[in-house]
Amino acid sequence: MDIIVLKPGTTEEQLRHIIKKLESKGLQANVSKGTERTIIGVIGDTSKITEEEESVISIMPGVEDVMRILKPYKLASREFRPDGTTINIKGNVIGGKKIHVIAGPCAVENRTILMNIAKKVKEAGATFVRGGAFKPRTSPYSFQGLGEEGLKYLAEAREKTGLPVVTELMDPRDMEVIQKYADIIQIGARNMQNFRLLLEVGNSSKPVLLKRGLSATIKEWLMAAEYIMSRGNHHVILCERGIRTFETATRNTLDLSAVPVLKKLTHLPVFVDPSHGVGKWDLVAPMAKAAVAAGADGLIIEVHTNPEEALSDGEQSLKPNDFKKLMKDLKPIASAIGRSI
Amino acid sequence: MDIIVLKPGTTEEQLRHIIKKLESKGLQANVSKGTERTIIGVIGDTSKITEEEESVISIMPGVEDVMRILKPYKLASREFRPDGTTINIKGNVIGGKKIHVIAGPCAVENRTILMNIAKKVKEAGATFVRGGAFKPRTSPYSFQGLGEEGLKYLAEAREKTGLPVVTELMDPRDMEVIQKYADIIQIGARNMQNFRLLLEVGNSSKPVLLKRGLSATIKEWLMAAEYIMSRGNHHVILCERGIRTFETATRNTLDLSAVPVLKKLTHLPVFVDPSHGVGKWDLVAPMAKAAVAAGADGLIIEVHTNPEEALSDGEQSLKPNDFKKLMKDLKPIASAIGRSI
Amino acid sequence: MDIIVLKPGTTEEQLRHIIKKLESKGLQANVSKGTERTIIGVIGDTSKITEEEESVISIMPGVEDVMRILKPYKLASREFRPDGTTINIKGNVIGGKKIHVIAGPCAVENRTILMNIAKKVKEAGATFVRGGAFKPRTSPYSFQGLGEEGLKYLAEAREKTGLPVVTELMDPRDMEVIQKYADIIQIGARNMQNFRLLLEVGNSSKPVLLKRGLSATIKEWLMAAEYIMSRGNHHVILCERGIRTFETATRNTLDLSAVPVLKKLTHLPVFVDPSHGVGKWDLVAPMAKAAVAAGADGLIIEVHTNPEEALSDGEQSLKPNDFKKLMKDLKPIASAIGRSI
Amino acid sequence: MDIIVLKPGTTEEQLRHIIKKLESKGLQANVSKGTERTIIGVIGDTSKITEEEESVISIMPGVEDVMRILKPYKLASREFRPDGTTINIKGNVIGGKKIHVIAGPCAVENRTILMNIAKKVKEAGATFVRGGAFKPRTSPYSFQGLGEEGLKYLAEAREKTGLPVVTELMDPRDMEVIQKYADIIQIGARNMQNFRLLLEVGNSSKPVLLKRGLSATIKEWLMAAEYIMSRGNHHVILCERGIRTFETATRNTLDLSAVPVLKKLTHLPVFVDPSHGVGKWDLVAPMAKAAVAAGADGLIIEVHTNPEEALSDGEQSLKPNDFKKLMKDLKPIASAIGRSI
Repeated sequence: MDIIVLKPGTTEEQLRHIIKKLESKGLQANVSKGTERTIIGVIGDTSKITEEEESVISIMPGVEDVMRILKPYKLASREFRPDGTTINIKGNVIGGKKIHVIAGPCAVENRTILMNIAKKVKEAGATFVRGGAFKPRTSPYSFQGLGEEGLKYLAEAREKTGLPVVTELMDPRDMEVIQKYADIIQIGARNMQNFRLLLEVGNSSKPVLLKRGLSATIKEWLMAAEYIMSRGNHHVILCERGIRTFETATRNTLDLSAVPVLKKLTHLPVFVDPSHGVGKWDLVAPMAKAAVAAGADGLIIEVHTNPEEALSDGEQSLKPNDFKKLMKDLKPIASAIGRSI
Repeated sequence: MDIIVLKPGTTEEQLRHIIKKLESKGLQANVSKGTERTIIGVIGDTSKITEEEESVISIMPGVEDVMRILKPYKLASREFRPDGTTINIKGNVIGGKKIHVIAGPCAVENRTILMNIAKKVKEAGATFVRGGAFKPRTSPYSFQGLGEEGLKYLAEAREKTGLPVVTELMDPRDMEVIQKYADIIQIGARNMQNFRLLLEVGNSSKPVLLKRGLSATIKEWLMAAEYIMSRGNHHVILCERGIRTFETATRNTLDLSAVPVLKKLTHLPVFVDPSHGVGKWDLVAPMAKAAVAAGADGLIIEVHTNPEEALSDGEQSLKPNDFKKLMKDLKPIASAIGRSI
Repeated sequence: MDIIVLKPGTTEEQLRHIIKKLESKGLQANVSKGTERTIIGVIGDTSKITEEEESVISIMPGVEDVMRILKPYKLASREFRPDGTTINIKGNVIGGKKIHVIAGPCAVENRTILMNIAKKVKEAGATFVRGGAFKPRTSPYSFQGLGEEGLKYLAEAREKTGLPVVTELMDPRDMEVIQKYADIIQIGARNMQNFRLLLEVGNSSKPVLLKRGLSATIKEWLMAAEYIMSRGNHHVILCERGIRTFETATRNTLDLSAVPVLKKLTHLPVFVDPSHGVGKWDLVAPMAKAAVAAGADGLIIEVHTNPEEALSDGEQSLKPNDFKKLMKDLKPIASAIGRSI
Repeated sequence: MDIIVLKPGTTEEQLRHIIKKLESKGLQANVSKGTERTIIGVIGDTSKITEEEESVISIMPGVEDVMRILKPYKLASREFRPDGTTINIKGNVIGGKKIHVIAGPCAVENRTILMNIAKKVKEAGATFVRGGAFKPRTSPYSFQGLGEEGLKYLAEAREKTGLPVVTELMDPRDMEVIQKYADIIQIGARNMQNFRLLLEVGNSSKPVLLKRGLSATIKEWLMAAEYIMSRGNHHVILCERGIRTFETATRNTLDLSAVPVLKKLTHLPVFVDPSHGVGKWDLVAPMAKAAVAAGADGLIIEVHTNPEEALSDGEQSLKPNDFKKLMKDLKPIASAIGRSI
């Protein structure tokens, strides 16, 4: 249902013109004349009104405003699946009582480093390993990732540690190769509204970790999830990773309130990436703890054995020992809110 | 120490002109010619260079950029007092191991309601009671507070419960009456850069709860604390309460990463106000938990016995029972990070 | 008129409870049951519903959302005075066909400099002279202004040039002295929601130049104007001076679209301050031209005879010759849109 | 050249460790000990230091901060081509004295409407026609464009009017078909950091219209241009189209100060899209005028013969008559700043 607010002084003819327009779409108009304004309640299946039609109604003569009451996403809404979605990946159930931690380097740099990191994060309690083979970099002169070679190392790390693999898809043309190696396909923040890429993973059977865009509202983020789900893939994990604000003391502003907000609006699991959220390794631990306390279903944390030599994001990576300590410190917090990690 | 970067092609004469300017301020210039740029390291007590002088150096012919290396605040910096400030208010030590909770209604509405709320929050474990007698309202047609009458009720609530009182100062002309009743003087977000008000509380001996401005950077916030401290009052408590961003799902975006950032930069205690941060009562509990996990020294939470009838901020107020449950739920989280509440 | 949207599954009893609440405020409920939602159109004088009451209705059981249809400001709205406000200050009519330019230094530094600048801006075509005697500075260690001495110099500059004086009020306790010297009282960006200050100038008979707050929405800005007007002073000039965004290439982001937006919403004159908007002197001229093209009623521009020695804002000040050239360049643009300067 | 600022108390050994690291990259260290801090000026070709290396230096023991002095983009910088780039497209020279206007519907909806619009905008003085065949839509349920059919209509419109065609590329897999029909390839705001797409158009010989991302800094935007140019395509046109801020009165906040800022930083032509910048048709004309006054090299404006029936962005489209009037009104403004339109 939509509500149309008329300007003061709207004529009867203008009103009739609007009503006719609505009726031409199979809708009914419930006119309500107040002392200061007349409003029209639009009755019928307004989900048939596209955003475009809504937009054009707003410029019809006599219309002051159009207010949409129903949310523009359906499959992603909590109402669609009140109990919450759980996703089982090789025995790891995401969205349940257990909080999952995805850990690993920003980029896969070489075989030895990756195997070493994977072993360490497994020992510390991570349940997934991550690493980028295709890297979105702000500079064309920066390291762009190893490509399929990196994916092969990830597969080997999975074989050795038993940890399923999370890696990013940047280009629809890489879909085939990514599907071959990944257990969860990550869509990065800069691609949250790369709609073709969303449709591509929507056609896949692999779970998708959908990062929030730097300046995406929660509503737009859920619409991006809806894109994926509209193609049949309902295994979407949302991942808060910081939004862009005026504050420069941190790389981004981690919006932890997005966690409880999403828990109300959607049935999808919600992760938090404190590493990108703050951009500095010594701020990662307190924000990881805060994320768990706020109700996140999982974390994604950058870990590197030698951050000083990392080819990407060394500044925000934890060393294995710091990661181990963090995992230990998270346990009583998880337990305090009735969960495990 | 400051660094002056010169444009490519700067002449020797321009360079001499800049050096002379620095020397006229009692500073020395350490010139360093690189392959691509020449830079000047400014040696001497650059704290004597005001922001204005820095700004004007930046427009001298040949200057590309001036980079300030030292922080503009001194008294508020962690280096000034590495161990952290503790503030003892009638036996309640803020900034120590114990996490303090300030609770109460947004505005003092009448005697009965306030006494009732004060009693309830005391029972639940709050250690301070709050309530506004002078209210900053966005509309001139809204309830503006009871004035001194409200302060008297707060004093009575303190007498009955033993809880010290936190209340807001909006106008330097109210300083005398506020000092008579308050144990902590609150400076609201909209007044964070009301510099006259800052100087006024700087001259007071009462601790000050300094809320972050809606669009204040952490650096500006610390400069506001410096204003107060420059007058001799070093008992400043910083309070994160959400910043303004593009997201509209919450009233503001609660920037919890400010907590660990401030812990590095300053020795002052850091509180969090989740009620204003999110603006909706059902999001307050998860964000209060997250704030504690992130390392906050205290919380400030709006509680009302009958939010549906509140004259201000009913939407974001907890009922006494919800507050009681929250206080109980915070205990194991505080304990998980080695603190008590 | 307000609209209340009910949650799906709201009971008849909850509905009756809401209707009763409305009726207790002297309002009527027009219930409209759609296929997906039930909405209540609130009929009667909803201006009697304060924001607080609206807020508490939103937490009543069964309520999903409350949408306000009428604007919260009245006196400031275009509907209140469709023809636009003009303000006559010693023969200079603001809000008419002629575009006015207020020029001068950021701060009054000494008598000689001010007289010199005033003379130069008068020659170039400025119609008002500005200068701060009380300065809001982010650092307590910066120059804070000359106080009444500065005001006296401004009065002398007015006497010598005939230009009326614009100067800033920071503290209600300075009201008396400011009124004695100023022709227009400026409320700075950081005080846009210093509500006590707004009420103070609302009681004055002097025109007020109300700068937009760094993170103020246009609606909040108009509410600040409403504060002033609610006390009887309807001579308010709005001044856009840049908002805070993520972009750091400019000091602020000058929101020129605020000009045509305000022209629709309010009858008050709209000025633009490109100097603070961009913060760099060489960007001032293009943005001044753009402001005129966008429909601004006036400009406020910082001019200094020797920016390299200015005690405040030297970086963004024009030299008299650059200002003179700008004034000349603005003429054909003003003329292109049917105005003069 | 980079500058490394050391923490107070950094040991000689730490200093040696940092110097060794720099020397291992073929760089020299110029150490400068001040009274408060020691800084290292890094001498040599620091363009060989990638952002990663810079980032990891910042976490070496003893390092407080690393400041980059040189801009991260080279090909896009004004220094690379001081005279400014001009692009000749079928005789239309972009970046010269003449201001160009690209006009047309948001999406190509059908043949008749497009031909009609193209004819009208040609008559009014537009020099390019635009229209989307592949549309990025926030909802998967919205109209997604006609695909190649739409491109064919655009080609037909070009044939009939002589106007070269501007259309958007969303997916690298569409590159071949887009190249066949487009004269300028548009990269939309949501794809400004779709790095694979940037490389793709970088390999093309077609000029590229690169829209600014919703939350992209000017520096990031120039880095996106650098991506394209690094592949050999130097014909990049930058297009400001509004950034995301807290203000909701307009769809975005049009950052017109980006125009003069870019004119200093880069040699590339700068366009402005007021239609997306404000999102409301009646605000387009004043902002188009302001853009020209601010120094834009061109405009891109949405025009539709029947906005009420448009399938996309009807709300912000001008009708042909309004567009015609705007083109007429722009002439004297262009002339006032020494240009033509």
